[in-house]
Amino acid sequence: MELSNPQNLSTSNSLSFGESQGEALTVIKIGGNIIDDSEKLHEFLKAFADLKGYKILVHGGGKMATKLATEIHIEAKMIEGRRITDIETLRIVTMVYAGLISKNLVAQLQMHGCNALGLCGADGNLIKAKKRPIQKIKSKIDTTFQEVDFGYVGDLDENAIQKENLSKLIGNGFIPVFSAITHDGKSQLLNTNADTIASALAIGMSKQYKTSLVYCFEKKGVLLDVNDESSVIREINPSKYEDLKAKGIIADGMLPKLHTAFEAINKGVKEVFIGKADDLGDLGIAHAFGTKLVI
Amino acid sequence: MELSNPQNLSTSNSLSFGESQGEALTVIKIGGNIIDDSEKLHEFLKAFADLKGYKILVHGGGKMATKLATEIHIEAKMIEGRRITDIETLRIVTMVYAGLISKNLVAQLQMHGCNALGLCGADGNLIKAKKRPIQKIKSKIDTTFQEVDFGYVGDLDENAIQKENLSKLIGNGFIPVFSAITHDGKSQLLNTNADTIASALAIGMSKQYKTSLVYCFEKKGVLLDVNDESSVIREINPSKYEDLKAKGIIADGMLPKLHTAFEAINKGVKEVFIGKADDLGDLGIAHAFGTKLVI
Repeated sequence: MELSNPQNLSTSNSLSFGESQGEALTVIKIGGNIIDDSEKLHEFLKAFADLKGYKILVHGGGKMATKLATEIHIEAKMIEGRRITDIETLRIVTMVYAGLISKNLVAQLQMHGCNALGLCGADGNLIKAKKRPIQKIKSKIDTTFQEVDFGYVGDLDENAIQKENLSKLIGNGFIPVFSAITHDGKSQLLNTNADTIASALAIGMSKQYKTSLVYCFEKKGVLLDVNDESSVIREINPSKYEDLKAKGIIADGMLPKLHTAFEAINKGVKEVFIGKADDLGDLGIAHAFGTKLVI
Repeated sequence: MELSNPQNLSTSNSLSFGESQGEALTVIKIGGNIIDDSEKLHEFLKAFADLKGYKILVHGGGKMATKLATEIHIEAKMIEGRRITDIETLRIVTMVYAGLISKNLVAQLQMHGCNALGLCGADGNLIKAKKRPIQKIKSKIDTTFQEVDFGYVGDLDENAIQKENLSKLIGNGFIPVFSAITHDGKSQLLNTNADTIASALAIGMSKQYKTSLVYCFEKKGVLLDVNDESSVIREINPSKYEDLKAKGIIADGMLPKLHTAFEAINKGVKEVFIGKADDLGDLGIAHAFGTKLVI
């Protein structure tokens, strides 16, 4: 919470790196729905390249990892409905996320004059994760608990982001494009949720920059009527959030999304947007892109 | 040739980037023989991390790409003994070189405190290549010529290296680790020979840095007796090169290696070493690592 006090911003002038303290930085996360649609992806990347100010792109996986896994006959391993990242799966996501998707996104962004760098958390030690310890998960069929080893999954804490190195890259005009691969600092690559990476980056950089976090998903925003794409709620603050929850308008899958978003704001992020990648061109226009969450 | 004149070095002070003009930069290329041997690779990376001064690592492929190609039933396509990079092969090398190998090298280097960044030529627009045009290749079985489309293969010219961006990364303490993937600036990734990339990087940066180029291969250096690893010729200059060629001591596969090496020196590189990755720790010691080529 200490970062939500704007007064604290002025105490960060002890930072010797970068000259951009207090400037705007937008962290945008895209998922499989846009990565798998080459036409929409092309349009999105053009809009991303045109976006003013400092920016970071974080991308999820899409169907390509599943396709490769099928081709080499690796079956997705699940325990109690949770995906397990075994060493073979880690090998696949490293190839697909940090290789194929990352470098193709970068090549397209470079075509649009956007000076992208395709990075994972190991690069520049930018995102250091901790391998998730074995967890006790409640069984779905009875009342027992089961010990689950999620495998090569990396969790992030508040010290995950190497701000100084990231600042140097951003300050020198590079546009980081992050895949959801991190490392533990002891040579082990790990797979981390892309939403979590985007949030950690936005929070981590919020001491030095005015960070906005943008989650792109399949809908135009938080909808008043889930069947009506024109019913986007343009702005939600914590009291409205409580109200919408009480009325049952925000429910199910939207609950954790908004919870995470408000948590990021409480930890220093200026604002969080939830919207559709197709509409990114409207991000700079007030009340035009998705739902804006503020406190 | 204009760079081989040391007087030209003083004219480069119009460069506004970096503060390290004239400082040493070592470009080291490793190939499959070291990448495929995890124990030797570990030792090499430790020695690389300990190496003083600015440095760049360039890595080839190794057996992992062939393994993956076999797993997904992609056959290597050859025409007249030349490898063709079709779209499926490009997909594989992008995943394996720029994803799997690159990020694992980086994670290991980070463990050794070496601030590596796993890059391809598209990142930061650092290495721009031109897709090889269709070439007429003389048939091996008769006197006819055949038109060969090498596919997604990138050739480099003297403007391939984006020196300013690379300088910013190096000057800010990052250690670039390059896979042999480049781009054409129009969103197409391309596959480029790793030796060529190493040479282009060393030549390209030689205006700003005193560059040494190190080719690691399977032998300890250029040998006086090909069967005696202790017979390394420690230094070769152009007149000695001519002499060794005339005597038949340098022949076959060593000829193009040394030709390329002297070409790099003629284009501004201070010195080229040819030696074994295992011996990298000896690089700083006079006459201890491989064969040194100078003019």
